[in-house]
Amino acid sequence: MKVAFVGKVGSISKRERLALASRGSAGNEEARKAAETIVEEVRLRGDAAVLEYCEKFDGAKMAAEDLLVKEEEFEEALENTPEEIVDALKKSAGNIRKFAELELEKSWFAELEGGRIGERAAKLPRGKGFVGKLVLPLERVGVYAPGGKAAYASSVLMGVVPAKAAGVKEVVVCSPPGKDGKCNSLVLVAAKIAGADKVFKIGGAQAVAALGLGTPSVPRVEKIVGPGNVFVNEAKKIVAAGGTAIDLPAGPSEVLIVADESCKPEWVAADLLAQAEHDENACAVLVATSGKVAEEVGKELEKQLAKLERREIAIKSLEKNGAILVAEDLQEAVGFANDYAP
Amino acid sequence: MKVAFVGKVGSISKRERLALASRGSAGNEEARKAAETIVEEVRLRGDAAVLEYCEKFDGAKMAAEDLLVKEEEFEEALENTPEEIVDALKKSAGNIRKFAELELEKSWFAELEGGRIGERAAKLPRGKGFVGKLVLPLERVGVYAPGGKAAYASSVLMGVVPAKAAGVKEVVVCSPPGKDGKCNSLVLVAAKIAGADKVFKIGGAQAVAALGLGTPSVPRVEKIVGPGNVFVNEAKKIVAAGGTAIDLPAGPSEVLIVADESCKPEWVAADLLAQAEHDENACAVLVATSGKVAEEVGKELEKQLAKLERREIAIKSLEKNGAILVAEDLQEAVGFANDYAP
Repeated sequence: MKVAFVGKVGSISKRERLALASRGSAGNEEARKAAETIVEEVRLRGDAAVLEYCEKFDGAKMAAEDLLVKEEEFEEALENTPEEIVDALKKSAGNIRKFAELELEKSWFAELEGGRIGERAAKLPRGKGFVGKLVLPLERVGVYAPGGKAAYASSVLMGVVPAKAAGVKEVVVCSPPGKDGKCNSLVLVAAKIAGADKVFKIGGAQAVAALGLGTPSVPRVEKIVGPGNVFVNEAKKIVAAGGTAIDLPAGPSEVLIVADESCKPEWVAADLLAQAEHDENACAVLVATSGKVAEEVGKELEKQLAKLERREIAIKSLEKNGAILVAEDLQEAVGFANDYAP
Repeated sequence: MKVAFVGKVGSISKRERLALASRGSAGNEEARKAAETIVEEVRLRGDAAVLEYCEKFDGAKMAAEDLLVKEEEFEEALENTPEEIVDALKKSAGNIRKFAELELEKSWFAELEGGRIGERAAKLPRGKGFVGKLVLPLERVGVYAPGGKAAYASSVLMGVVPAKAAGVKEVVVCSPPGKDGKCNSLVLVAAKIAGADKVFKIGGAQAVAALGLGTPSVPRVEKIVGPGNVFVNEAKKIVAAGGTAIDLPAGPSEVLIVADESCKPEWVAADLLAQAEHDENACAVLVATSGKVAEEVGKELEKQLAKLERREIAIKSLEKNGAILVAEDLQEAVGFANDYAP
């Protein structure tokens, strides 16, 4: 395993800092053109175009009525999933829900001369001036979840659970089908646990187009969230220009971990690889507060890489954008993190 | 005075609804190219380019040391401003500060198994897992304030006061100079009242470029906020792509007022005109809950238009995108507002 940068934080040259900072951008001209065609076709021909792209890109021959995942497919997926995975997903969903509930923004109203007067618009005094913020959930949100080999049940939970916690009435998941016309079992199980209202077997730019424009089968949503490949990202930018909200035009995955002596090296290594394996352009950076920590994590990286399914991608990502840095102290580590992040 | 749409909410045709909805976009190809050149020149030549554009676009011949507004210029501006205006600005700044303080997001930390454990990272338990959100102010923010005839002291207050309330250390205002190399007095007085740390006599795309890239005279900021013309907006989009945060690529001003019998028609008319006068492409829409209210506001519009300095612009805006609508009841009015807004 080679890592692009190894060394002390204090001894990184200006050139190296720039190289580290100028990582993955979120644009891709070729993908944009392909996505434009796909969005336009879905706009003009609705489900027919969606079905053609499902066959072309995912090899799944389906009819319009196959797009929506049926109850028995969820049941089958659940049967195919080991109980310990189901339990882990449930625990994870619970944690995400708790965080989302703690994070919920509340409505507030106040008289400028007085102070807060409540959280409910219905109870406000009539005929009196007041200011405030009424926080309302969106009606319908779409969550894109990558499928196939790069299926991340965690992405489904991260997209669906906060939306439901915020009170979104209908959360619609799209995830690509396999050649057999089925969605990845983990994606389906996670969607069910998270409380998704509908799951469609549609992937790529055509999924984003269907969610952003609506088709006879797929309801139009107000906002689309979730990670995806370059075509998904470009399609998100296109529908965003047309008025559908998006989370962000995500570039390649990034992670920077500040680790001191109290860390568990095997967890740190796993968290680094979880991002590095996403994409050759992903960035995984460790800032350790001692050479010993850096060394231990490095060993764990080697060990875990050896049994990683997506090893080739992770290795390329580490070679291109990876870094194992040693800081003098926590202060220097945090300083570097603050510089690197934005 | 002609207004583009007058009639009942219930009788607006689908075509009219679409026409109302497809209002001002935020893009302009020609302005983008001009802004690209300006940003590039400021990147390459710093203050020298800024000074050339100040002379070219604003007719102000200045040296680098003139760019920063001096204490005596603030004093002169204050002397030139009627006391009642100064008082109104102070009252307004106080209201905005109060709102901003009510709106402030607080840090929070929690144990997933327990609940909230505080608002300060420094007090968190060591060696225990927790989740949370640490909310920190930006270090330095730039506020763009249009100058000359379209100088809005209110924009200065709206940009500077919330940033200071959020704890931003340095708030830098840029506003175009007149031919005499001076900034609009109201802008300067408002900047002082709002608590701006520095004001530079720079306008247009060159101001955004200087704030986004930094020059020997102008410090680089983390975020740029505030309204501006198409060149300012395009420049904001350009520096945003380079990593400077922006509020939003603003299109033309918009306002929709829902008014019932309890409204003061002269205030409603003034609020409509305050946006209509911004730009020929601005949108000012009234949704009244009775024909009587609509009529009274209409009369006030005529009356106030007659003495409006920027009458020509307001009239064109109302002709293009204005609307005076009558709803059956508050429910229908709010329904229309909800459809129109996004």
